[in-house]
Amino acid sequence: MELVGSDSDLLGEALRRIQREVDVAFDAFLPMPADTRAPLVEAMRYAAIGGGKRVRPLLVAATAELYGVDRDAAVRAGCAVEAIHAYSLIHDDLPCMDDDDLRHGKPTVHKQFDEATAVLAGDCLHALAFEILADAATSGDPFVRAELIQTLATASGKDGMAGGQMMDIVAEMEDYDLHTVTRLQQLKTGALLAASVEMGAILGHVAPEGRGHLRNYARDIGLAFQIADDLLDHEGDEEKAGKALRKDEGQGKQTFVSLMGAEKAREQARALVDQAIGHLAQHGKEARLLAALARFIVERDR
Amino acid sequence: MELVGSDSDLLGEALRRIQREVDVAFDAFLPMPADTRAPLVEAMRYAAIGGGKRVRPLLVAATAELYGVDRDAAVRAGCAVEAIHAYSLIHDDLPCMDDDDLRHGKPTVHKQFDEATAVLAGDCLHALAFEILADAATSGDPFVRAELIQTLATASGKDGMAGGQMMDIVAEMEDYDLHTVTRLQQLKTGALLAASVEMGAILGHVAPEGRGHLRNYARDIGLAFQIADDLLDHEGDEEKAGKALRKDEGQGKQTFVSLMGAEKAREQARALVDQAIGHLAQHGKEARLLAALARFIVERDR
Repeated sequence: MELVGSDSDLLGEALRRIQREVDVAFDAFLPMPADTRAPLVEAMRYAAIGGGKRVRPLLVAATAELYGVDRDAAVRAGCAVEAIHAYSLIHDDLPCMDDDDLRHGKPTVHKQFDEATAVLAGDCLHALAFEILADAATSGDPFVRAELIQTLATASGKDGMAGGQMMDIVAEMEDYDLHTVTRLQQLKTGALLAASVEMGAILGHVAPEGRGHLRNYARDIGLAFQIADDLLDHEGDEEKAGKALRKDEGQGKQTFVSLMGAEKAREQARALVDQAIGHLAQHGKEARLLAALARFIVERDR
Repeated sequence: MELVGSDSDLLGEALRRIQREVDVAFDAFLPMPADTRAPLVEAMRYAAIGGGKRVRPLLVAATAELYGVDRDAAVRAGCAVEAIHAYSLIHDDLPCMDDDDLRHGKPTVHKQFDEATAVLAGDCLHALAFEILADAATSGDPFVRAELIQTLATASGKDGMAGGQMMDIVAEMEDYDLHTVTRLQQLKTGALLAASVEMGAILGHVAPEGRGHLRNYARDIGLAFQIADDLLDHEGDEEKAGKALRKDEGQGKQTFVSLMGAEKAREQARALVDQAIGHLAQHGKEARLLAALARFIVERDR
């Protein structure tokens, strides 16, 4: 599939739309309580509202759109994935983990509030993801709700995102090869991106055997996403990124860039995106947004 | 309902049985991976296997038994609640929270491993709870699975356990009255105990309107449990408790004991247990185990 000029407008509009929708939804999910839980909910709102590109919710919504899913349902499922993503950033930024002071260009949660509040706000966003998905407002079909939850829980736990984060922490002490770095990133970043696409298809009542091409698309963009992240970390602008860069290099961690070189890594990311878009062929023009999103993932500057 | 002497044998046998079953189940849920996630899974196993009284899983199983629920299903749901309880202990023990070195008579997870591993092990036990519940092995009925998840997620997030923990942290700076301490404890401890009973009833396909008496039972034992905890904290033996005691007093936090006095608190706990047992009347002798568990909650010495 060839991308035409208007696809970047299409993507820009879609990103602005989902960003607005996700912010409105989190605002409703997180009313301020009248008791001393207020700082907790304030920290959850600080982390969940108004930050991030919302790539994961857009993956849910754009996939769901292929199957004519109700928009509200897709936005709710997208918020659940984003709640998991947001909690993981809060915990990853903690002093005992990556010890970061900046995220999305503002102080990290433990800097803005304190560490205890950050741990709890992360835990509560984690629970919120499943509160949202288990609610009949996400889908009237309990089978769909249970499958959404199973997909997201597996993608975020020890066999997904958090497992990848553990491998990443250990990376400082180990000399990972390309195979292991690929595995690490498939867990740390890929699992949640793949779950986003999968959840869009689940909402669309697509049976597991009909999701093969979407899984292939998700696998390829997941890997491309992380290679692009490594390139940004290597060459990017800290101000644009809104966070500290080049920490991996300082810690002697192997990355796609350190293992393959920047030029080869860039080629590989582009080839993966072409391959990802190829998997969408059966959807024809309807998949323009998912294709544009795949391109954005490697071309973005933050 | 009067308790007879054999009830303590009944309870002892039931506790030993559920402890064994929960350990066997967690052992199966947590196989050691062959990659560098090993320390993460080791920490999860350290926290989840072989410790704790397993009051919550027994509440699930004993309630489920009233409705003839399959034992494996009840044990799985009990493990999900216990996974949430275990994750909360790991995070609560962190240096930035309660900063505890001992739990169940052994080093806390961040002492035995490190802080980063402790945060991640807690996060992964949190996810595991929902992985277990969303699996069709817990119930073939997706409506039951979705309802179990909604109940547990709500009881553990900002409107439940973690919200109560936030109120507890702020307690050092505030001068809580009895009403606020009650509210705090209903969230911090009561919500998960109540969810355990509720989940047993959900597995038994009891409609929400048929669960009123069980909710009343759970509310009363939840409060009694926390009053007993405050009494143990005030008067207990550190060695038996397997953790540091009398920290609340040192931090100037209000508790049931500081607000009511020890004698009044003990009376209140016993009255609550009598009231809790009264709510079980419709089940006759079948509820002997739940009644014995209620007594145990205030009479335990750790």
